[in-house]
Amino acid sequence: MAKKINISSNHVLRLLASSSIILNLFFIWNWYGGTGGEWDYYYLSWSKRAAAEAEAVAAIPCSGHGTAYLDGLVLDGSKVPVCECNTCYGGTDCSQLDLHCVVNSDSGDPLFLEPFWMQHAASSALLVAGWHRMSYSYSDHSSISKELVKQIRQLHSTVGNAVTDGRFVAFGVGSTQLLNAAVYALSPANSSSPAAASVVASIPFYPVYQTQTDLLQSEEFRFQGDASLWKNNSKDGKKIIEFVTSPNNPDGHLNKAVLHGSNVKHIYDHAYFWPHYTAITAPANADLMLFTLSKLTGHAGSRFGYVPAQ
Amino acid sequence: MAKKINISSNHVLRLLASSSIILNLFFIWNWYGGTGGEWDYYYLSWSKRAAAEAEAVAAIPCSGHGTAYLDGLVLDGSKVPVCECNTCYGGTDCSQLDLHCVVNSDSGDPLFLEPFWMQHAASSALLVAGWHRMSYSYSDHSSISKELVKQIRQLHSTVGNAVTDGRFVAFGVGSTQLLNAAVYALSPANSSSPAAASVVASIPFYPVYQTQTDLLQSEEFRFQGDASLWKNNSKDGKKIIEFVTSPNNPDGHLNKAVLHGSNVKHIYDHAYFWPHYTAITAPANADLMLFTLSKLTGHAGSRFGYVPAQ
Repeated sequence: MAKKINISSNHVLRLLASSSIILNLFFIWNWYGGTGGEWDYYYLSWSKRAAAEAEAVAAIPCSGHGTAYLDGLVLDGSKVPVCECNTCYGGTDCSQLDLHCVVNSDSGDPLFLEPFWMQHAASSALLVAGWHRMSYSYSDHSSISKELVKQIRQLHSTVGNAVTDGRFVAFGVGSTQLLNAAVYALSPANSSSPAAASVVASIPFYPVYQTQTDLLQSEEFRFQGDASLWKNNSKDGKKIIEFVTSPNNPDGHLNKAVLHGSNVKHIYDHAYFWPHYTAITAPANADLMLFTLSKLTGHAGSRFGYVPAQ
Repeated sequence: MAKKINISSNHVLRLLASSSIILNLFFIWNWYGGTGGEWDYYYLSWSKRAAAEAEAVAAIPCSGHGTAYLDGLVLDGSKVPVCECNTCYGGTDCSQLDLHCVVNSDSGDPLFLEPFWMQHAASSALLVAGWHRMSYSYSDHSSISKELVKQIRQLHSTVGNAVTDGRFVAFGVGSTQLLNAAVYALSPANSSSPAAASVVASIPFYPVYQTQTDLLQSEEFRFQGDASLWKNNSKDGKKIIEFVTSPNNPDGHLNKAVLHGSNVKHIYDHAYFWPHYTAITAPANADLMLFTLSKLTGHAGSRFGYVPAQ
């Protein structure tokens, strides 16, 4: 049996006003609160949909063994993107371990850095407007972002692993592209020397040095194997381009150049020369050095490499 | 002189409750309202900062003659990105017209498409999470996005300007890269024919065909000018690669191949084969066709080209 309660209109109003104020405080906290920082104090309009879309995709559970992406596959009939599973995992939510999966020790993915970026979700997210950089070039007629070059110099200065002051910085679609660009740049095009440059590296070397140099069939350079075999020949005037990989891929040794002389040029591949792979004893200071996001931040799929060069 | 008003506590409560409820409604409208669509009904957390940052940059006034970008220059001592002015404009807000500015008719930027994307800000914005696609490859071990290929096929099917069913679709860093990749792919590497392929095009042709082919100094191909000069030679077994540009760059003609035969391969450059440049009378159906975002959407700076090929 319900008890009869005597409620005055004043009581109802008090309840209504206080709950409405609490709801407002909740809205205000949500609107102005969040991760903190100067950018939180803006009202969102056209960016809200993209932001919500990204959060919805990130919230799709993939069991910690995969990720759903905004640009990933969307199954027909559904609007929800599909989990893309890491190697050896399957199922719609990547929860099924393939017990017969064989580990491929010949290559790797920098996915061990993914949790770091997930932990720093707010500070690493980026909203790209639909009209982002439509021009072929920057307003200074350059194809190189001054701000990006500035950030790269600051990074190396802070980490202390490379001297970049006074050097140009060129970008490439991953360092793989720059490996070839560097070989090409150091080759004797239209010089008086008719012979192609010999491209060499210390064994064991990253096989892409050879496959790419062979594949391109240039008149200007030719891959010719182990650097140490050229020690006695390196002073006869023939152009030599030596890849020096430090730390080395695949054995991790801090390789040094084995060939020297006015006819020898070096390409220092410092993809792994970062404190999370090796101790940094001194900043690298070569004329031409290669770095890549794949090993620095783990963004291998973004295909970004750069060369500080003199 | 102020008039004395008799206000009861009930009146104050009514006022408080009603204004608080109006504020509630405002917050609710802002939170759930906006551009419409399914994604608006999510609560934002880690994405909010990036979204607000993008809107703040987009709101920087550049007089309609320039744009400020999130990855643009930031003047020292300030945290506000700098306006990047279109050609012939200057000043901090791009309001100053350079009266001595000379029009460069030799090249152009697809900036005329920028207002379209600004008008569609909400539907074209994209929020990229900090852990976006860190792997070297997709989960199917491919380096090609299935979803992107699907979207490209749908686009051409809707527009009716190219047959893409049953063809592979390859991507490149702008179509400039693919121009060379196509020449390379069609050249007679390791064939019984020792001679380099002749790369030709009808005059007037896009000069990059020549500069890039010359620059790369490959053993496999050589630029050899006007296609029509090879009409009598095209049946002697020598490999010929003909660039066919339709609409042509620079004169806009709907070029057709001038060379034919089993030793002739064609690269159809359809960069401008879209309804906003020319009438589409029939879908292009060649074995190897080149397209680019630069001319389709105007995103020249994004460096994206693709090749539907058999």
